[in-house]
Amino acid sequence: MFDIEIYKARRAKLRATVGSGKILLLGNDEASINFAHNWYPYRQDSTFLYYFGLSIPGLIGVLDCDGDQDYLFGNDYQIDDIVWTGPQPTLRELGEKVGVESTFPLAKVSAQLNAKVHILPPYRGEHTLKLREILSKSVEEVSSMASIPLIKAIAAQRNIKAPEELVEMNKAVTTTSAIHLAVMKAARPGMKEYELVAVARRIAAENNVSLSFPPIATINGQTLHNHYYGNTIEAGDIVLFDCGAESPEFYAGDMTRTFPVSATFDSRQRELYEIVFRAHRAAVDSLHAGVKFIDVHLIAAKTLVSGLKEVGLMKGDAEEAVNAGAHTMFFQCGLGHMMGLDVHDMENLGEQYVGYTPELQKSTVFGLKSLRLGKELEENNVITVEPGIYIIPELIDLNKADGKFKDFINYDKLETYRDFGGIRVEEDFVINADGSTLLGNSVAIAPEEVEKVRSQALKS
Amino acid sequence: MFDIEIYKARRAKLRATVGSGKILLLGNDEASINFAHNWYPYRQDSTFLYYFGLSIPGLIGVLDCDGDQDYLFGNDYQIDDIVWTGPQPTLRELGEKVGVESTFPLAKVSAQLNAKVHILPPYRGEHTLKLREILSKSVEEVSSMASIPLIKAIAAQRNIKAPEELVEMNKAVTTTSAIHLAVMKAARPGMKEYELVAVARRIAAENNVSLSFPPIATINGQTLHNHYYGNTIEAGDIVLFDCGAESPEFYAGDMTRTFPVSATFDSRQRELYEIVFRAHRAAVDSLHAGVKFIDVHLIAAKTLVSGLKEVGLMKGDAEEAVNAGAHTMFFQCGLGHMMGLDVHDMENLGEQYVGYTPELQKSTVFGLKSLRLGKELEENNVITVEPGIYIIPELIDLNKADGKFKDFINYDKLETYRDFGGIRVEEDFVINADGSTLLGNSVAIAPEEVEKVRSQALKS
Repeated sequence: MFDIEIYKARRAKLRATVGSGKILLLGNDEASINFAHNWYPYRQDSTFLYYFGLSIPGLIGVLDCDGDQDYLFGNDYQIDDIVWTGPQPTLRELGEKVGVESTFPLAKVSAQLNAKVHILPPYRGEHTLKLREILSKSVEEVSSMASIPLIKAIAAQRNIKAPEELVEMNKAVTTTSAIHLAVMKAARPGMKEYELVAVARRIAAENNVSLSFPPIATINGQTLHNHYYGNTIEAGDIVLFDCGAESPEFYAGDMTRTFPVSATFDSRQRELYEIVFRAHRAAVDSLHAGVKFIDVHLIAAKTLVSGLKEVGLMKGDAEEAVNAGAHTMFFQCGLGHMMGLDVHDMENLGEQYVGYTPELQKSTVFGLKSLRLGKELEENNVITVEPGIYIIPELIDLNKADGKFKDFINYDKLETYRDFGGIRVEEDFVINADGSTLLGNSVAIAPEEVEKVRSQALKS
Repeated sequence: MFDIEIYKARRAKLRATVGSGKILLLGNDEASINFAHNWYPYRQDSTFLYYFGLSIPGLIGVLDCDGDQDYLFGNDYQIDDIVWTGPQPTLRELGEKVGVESTFPLAKVSAQLNAKVHILPPYRGEHTLKLREILSKSVEEVSSMASIPLIKAIAAQRNIKAPEELVEMNKAVTTTSAIHLAVMKAARPGMKEYELVAVARRIAAENNVSLSFPPIATINGQTLHNHYYGNTIEAGDIVLFDCGAESPEFYAGDMTRTFPVSATFDSRQRELYEIVFRAHRAAVDSLHAGVKFIDVHLIAAKTLVSGLKEVGLMKGDAEEAVNAGAHTMFFQCGLGHMMGLDVHDMENLGEQYVGYTPELQKSTVFGLKSLRLGKELEENNVITVEPGIYIIPELIDLNKADGKFKDFINYDKLETYRDFGGIRVEEDFVINADGSTLLGNSVAIAPEEVEKVRSQALKS
């Protein structure tokens, strides 16, 4: 946990920004796997962590904007519990750790609230059920009564990372870096994809932290959300590994590397890898406070198109191709996202509030609709940059049948790449006034660096 | 997955036993960690797995007892999804794998149901919300309308393990055995408890399976549900490690070992370990079809008391002590539980239906109220046996202040053991007509075996 004053200041700022009414922040309870008392690893709600710091189930926080006071609700352990759990701090002691003097049993929370209550959108069934009970509202009501002023105030606050948060994020990405280097070294022809995941789980567990999202470890990198780990990795394959670890205070890391199972890429792999890497460098070079991330995304897209033209997969003017969306044949998703206590930071608050502004609304067009962050970057935003080339056979067939992008795509040549797979590289950056700072340790990313790691690993 | 005929036969048997009405079995959806689309490792509902075999989110099964027919509900992937997920089997193809010909979109499930619907108790918030919507009932109604005939029919069926299930359970316990031996060998003075958990997570991940419950890895074995892993293990400490892996078909394993961080136990540790081990042997020797598990529990309790008398911690007649509940000063919980697709098998259906009978109700007395299984064992039940001695300072203080068990407890001597900790051993058994069969590989459990593993490990 951070210093007590940090939590007090964060809450005071939120109260001041929201201005009036009571803010209800639910802590997370345990999450049941296959019966009520068999639990997944506990994860506190990120907003509750941000304002109340306590990574313990069964807590609720209330901020009274009018009375300038904060309340913590929870139930003290009874002796019967203590036989099973060992001695536990009292609610009063927990409150003291984060500067909350007013602590009450959970049953008292409803009485503390009035008509003007600000809540966040629920993302677990338990949230909906609990809000329903506390607020005496219907399921439908609590699912649609999230407070926009609260969401905006939290997004504005959490989007700018304070120094103590940047230290934590660097820890998260440093552990993440260690995982990526270990996986890049560990891969051998004949291994299963899940053996690479095992390396990640071991290193996270050895650091007593969780992974920040389900890892992707696949020879089918073209499948963007791929959580299947059952394939054997063979010489000639490329492995796409996307994984992040949390820091001790639950901040996220998120990195991707794509590497050959053999010592080197084959010529096609190397060509497309070079293009992705060039797009990555172009995007990173464009980062600074004041640039719109959607423009950085488009710089990456144009760089991809230029490269794809060089290898004969695309044709025509790069700018026109991107304007027409033709790059989405290869790059269907966004260039990156905000990162913080959540890997997609505050995704539960709504991307339009975290990554966009009233003036810059999120696009609904294929490709840009998957860009989680479009707005102008500010100092101490933390973001990912993750361009890629993904050859998706189903998408080729669909677009070809529709006659889409035929001025920009060389479908004949593309057909010869149907089974190519996918490539992505991803790093995490803090935005500065005039550039950006890489978080974590630098892990081989230039193609020659990656091949060097692989060659040495296969010799050892 | 098992053979298609197995699922058809299981469902036919359930329909026949329940007799009339429609049985609604919810599959599990993904479980959200810190925002809607960041998911814990997927775990299908165990009852759904048992009858429909498919480990895929977003499915619902209906068994029509009157029409002797089964239905599978789910939504096929659209091309937009396939860009992100890769090609996926259709609902029709999924149904064919498990012998269900009638497949429909999720939106059709309500129309398939009538007034006589059998449901199970919900254990995730999402179940409650989904049942509420499907059945057009209130949250309170769906939380209390579980069908007792359905629960009894499922418990009767799942309690007796078929040959293919025993093979799976042996796989689960074999992986579990490998974890325990590796942890017993890996522990070194100065390590953190979480480094032992890391060994378990690595081995599970290398086998592409999950752990069946949150592991316990602690120098404070007296805390029965201890998920804190932050202590350093030092020479002279004993480590209690309780952990299980799943099989590829999601059956559970569950084992415990307690071992010295040094090469050998100290004399007090060895004395109490011998007592626990003797109670374990006595319990295992009593296992056979026809014996009531509550009687096996009491045999273990008496053996513990006899041993505790020998070392001077207890006094008086062992039988009277157990009748008075005085053993619960050291052994506060139950001797074991049913195990299957859940580590506490079917705990979500209610322990009274899985571990007890209308004639043998669960006790409400401290100690026995934590015995999850009391009833007569049957052939091909799978159970755990896990006696222990736990010295809980808070419980000593409480009982001493109340003057409890003073004819049976030597409080003066016990005070000198306040900081002793806890010891448990646990193995998994299939019940036979005239005995039992150990599942998995035998891992050092006799005190001299444990010390041999530790001595060799510390030398290497």
